[in-house]
Amino acid sequence: MRVTIFNEYLHELENDVVHDIYPEGIHATLAEAVTRLTGAEVRSATLRQQEHGLSQEVIDATDVLLWWGHKAHEEVADEVVDRVQRAVLGGMGLVVLHSAHYSKPFKRLMGTNASLKWREADEKERLWNLQPAHPILAGIPDYFELPREEMYGERFDVPDPDELLMLSWFQGGEVFRSLATWRRGHGTVVYFRPGHETYPTYHDPNVQRIVANAAAYAAARIRRPDTGSPETSPIEQVPNPGKENVLSATTAKREE
Amino acid sequence: MRVTIFNEYLHELENDVVHDIYPEGIHATLAEAVTRLTGAEVRSATLRQQEHGLSQEVIDATDVLLWWGHKAHEEVADEVVDRVQRAVLGGMGLVVLHSAHYSKPFKRLMGTNASLKWREADEKERLWNLQPAHPILAGIPDYFELPREEMYGERFDVPDPDELLMLSWFQGGEVFRSLATWRRGHGTVVYFRPGHETYPTYHDPNVQRIVANAAAYAAARIRRPDTGSPETSPIEQVPNPGKENVLSATTAKREE
Amino acid sequence: MRVTIFNEYLHELENDVVHDIYPEGIHATLAEAVTRLTGAEVRSATLRQQEHGLSQEVIDATDVLLWWGHKAHEEVADEVVDRVQRAVLGGMGLVVLHSAHYSKPFKRLMGTNASLKWREADEKERLWNLQPAHPILAGIPDYFELPREEMYGERFDVPDPDELLMLSWFQGGEVFRSLATWRRGHGTVVYFRPGHETYPTYHDPNVQRIVANAAAYAAARIRRPDTGSPETSPIEQVPNPGKENVLSATTAKREE
Amino acid sequence: MRVTIFNEYLHELENDVVHDIYPEGIHATLAEAVTRLTGAEVRSATLRQQEHGLSQEVIDATDVLLWWGHKAHEEVADEVVDRVQRAVLGGMGLVVLHSAHYSKPFKRLMGTNASLKWREADEKERLWNLQPAHPILAGIPDYFELPREEMYGERFDVPDPDELLMLSWFQGGEVFRSLATWRRGHGTVVYFRPGHETYPTYHDPNVQRIVANAAAYAAARIRRPDTGSPETSPIEQVPNPGKENVLSATTAKREE
Repeated sequence: MRVTIFNEYLHELENDVVHDIYPEGIHATLAEAVTRLTGAEVRSATLRQQEHGLSQEVIDATDVLLWWGHKAHEEVADEVVDRVQRAVLGGMGLVVLHSAHYSKPFKRLMGTNASLKWREADEKERLWNLQPAHPILAGIPDYFELPREEMYGERFDVPDPDELLMLSWFQGGEVFRSLATWRRGHGTVVYFRPGHETYPTYHDPNVQRIVANAAAYAAARIRRPDTGSPETSPIEQVPNPGKENVLSATTAKREE
Repeated sequence: MRVTIFNEYLHELENDVVHDIYPEGIHATLAEAVTRLTGAEVRSATLRQQEHGLSQEVIDATDVLLWWGHKAHEEVADEVVDRVQRAVLGGMGLVVLHSAHYSKPFKRLMGTNASLKWREADEKERLWNLQPAHPILAGIPDYFELPREEMYGERFDVPDPDELLMLSWFQGGEVFRSLATWRRGHGTVVYFRPGHETYPTYHDPNVQRIVANAAAYAAARIRRPDTGSPETSPIEQVPNPGKENVLSATTAKREE
Repeated sequence: MRVTIFNEYLHELENDVVHDIYPEGIHATLAEAVTRLTGAEVRSATLRQQEHGLSQEVIDATDVLLWWGHKAHEEVADEVVDRVQRAVLGGMGLVVLHSAHYSKPFKRLMGTNASLKWREADEKERLWNLQPAHPILAGIPDYFELPREEMYGERFDVPDPDELLMLSWFQGGEVFRSLATWRRGHGTVVYFRPGHETYPTYHDPNVQRIVANAAAYAAARIRRPDTGSPETSPIEQVPNPGKENVLSATTAKREE
Repeated sequence: MRVTIFNEYLHELENDVVHDIYPEGIHATLAEAVTRLTGAEVRSATLRQQEHGLSQEVIDATDVLLWWGHKAHEEVADEVVDRVQRAVLGGMGLVVLHSAHYSKPFKRLMGTNASLKWREADEKERLWNLQPAHPILAGIPDYFELPREEMYGERFDVPDPDELLMLSWFQGGEVFRSLATWRRGHGTVVYFRPGHETYPTYHDPNVQRIVANAAAYAAARIRRPDTGSPETSPIEQVPNPGKENVLSATTAKREE
């Protein structure tokens, strides 16, 4: 499995609290965990690199892409977003983390606002396991707690997930669909809620396990573009197999 | 119920076969049927009108929008596509007809290629009713036939529908998910396959009934933008309710 | 709309606390609310009546059946459960309330254990609205609270709902999928969580509104048995239309 | 992976046509294919064996159970059906083949009639691949044909599948949802349509591949009974943690 971790990598450089938690960047912490837990070959990509480190070559060599971003979603080039969307529809996996609910690739693949309620108040989050038999939840108990996290509250404006795997309880009174999957084209998209930059969430063993399992679950099994809509020959007999269609007819007429 | 029917309205003006079937345009035939069957207030919009007839004012006064387009999807202004997407997410219904599987609003809301196989060969289509109790299929028999239609074949590259209502059998050997719904934001999207411009499909009573039922089913029950992600006050006690977040902190620092 | 409300009607007769809240029985409180809010024709049925008040005649004249039960699920006759299941598959609606998650008809229609965690501790429940545009949630705010309720916690062992409409937050730390729908056959099943007998939950205006909306949403649109698997004649030409099948062949052989 | 194949094993002994195609029984043909393609440890069970070969010991040692039955569904003991249902809800996989749509375990887990239309006329079936990236469809082309099969036609009375993977086109004019999955409890149920006893369907390489893939996909990842609904202690503070509930109160009163 070949994993690429995209991280915006700005807060870690600009803010002391975040830097102390993730001195090498969130991507480094995630890379260590995913490598350790899955044996995958992991590389990183960050916003300030050329093409955000996500050249066509890199994407073509990626089975699953992890995405963390927060304050600079708008700086991601549309060309790269097109590339990521095409790759997912062609089979690449995409694991969307925390504030990347607002990233361009996720919004593009969902077709919705991906909006939610939020609050940063050092409160407790408890994540409940709805499907202990699901591969993404292998090794995860019936619930686990994060002592301090940012709150995300419903209504989360996404299409109904194909699989709803965890629900969060927040100390301040809200709930959230925290782990969910959607198939888009030949690819699998996973969203996993926790991961606010000012808390050590990605050092938590349960969080690491879920991120690693999600990467393995979403990793491409095939890669097929399938972007076109081919005209196709009949398999059984049809009345008028060589019929000229309107577009050709019209074009022909115009070209006369 | 206030219905707006968008029709590209080019084939009818350019091609004699199409003109003979829909002398006033596909929109006129659909408008007559929807008015007769639902009592709705129906208006039309066409590509060559200003803003394609879909000004913000029109959209705001539309409970459900029907969309037929084929050869000029690319001519639809992105600003109008944004407007339609926002309206659907805010609650407006959208009924997508036949070749509008490739329209910009549908692709935007699905997040996928919306690609398929096709063939025009005057072949028979038989549509099978999977959910006779569903409101969109009220009055529709267990199956009905269209003697000549364009073939659309799987794989139809769309997200798994929330409701799959009809399957098509084609004489030439293919099958297709022909009637399906998806919730997106507060709105409902319906896709209905038949309706190739060179056949009198929209004069068929079963097709008319389904289009009318789909309009009634998808029509907005509420209109709410919900585009933003508000910071929200805790309902229960939290440890640090007035905490400054990283974005504010960083900005403050920068501004010093 | 013709609504039948089945209530076990034991706690109200045996326990003073429950009797004080529902002096005429939970069914009477629900009947008043559903009549007032929908204009439906409402009748009641209780466990100790003959056939539990659910004769074939009553079921045939019921568009939607509400079901409340708790301590005597096992006393419901299997013949009546068969009748209710057949009716739902044929189109009748079923609204399952609170502890009726363990009722025989619900378990039969789900195929699962319908198990969950529970606790009675006078704690607060807050119900979050995931789909404000859904007909069952018409008139319901983004959340509402019940100051004291029994807790039901995940994992709720049911098939993934076709529509997930509300999530509950509990003071004691759990979450629950509190309002959900499933289509079974031609019928619609709705489950709505609150309603413990020692609290005045069914006097709450939001709860009453949801129960009434759910009844209207699930009410039968058609009634069709469809229990059999008919041998069917080909519509198109097939190689061997009059072929004798193995079962007939074997039977014929045996009878010689 | 430990696979158990249940086969009714009557047609092969009673009917010459079937015997010629499957001289050792359908289970033997399937066992050879599944062993060859997955390396699984495969055992068989047949109707006339004690407990149909499905003792609790066998079920406990089964990761996934394949089920073929046709003419003697009613002879399967309810005790064994209970056992199979419990095992699936606890995590065991179940792959339901062809006429086993009417088997007791499948009907029990679906909660519906599982009815359909049928015809035996030596007609062609073409199966279309909707999700080439799904593990069950690994190695399967965009479509494949079975030159002669029994026809099964919609409406197939099952709950909407969690995953719809193949659609069948039939020569005689019908369509069918031919490959689908449902999660029930901790287990996965797969239904795969082809396999009529008078045709050599289970000798087809694509059919064998799908059956083997389905077994691997559905095989248990965990085994957990979870049949009970435990009273549970609060995690956070609640107003009245030691409260006596109505059932206990009533019982106590009665016992005085």
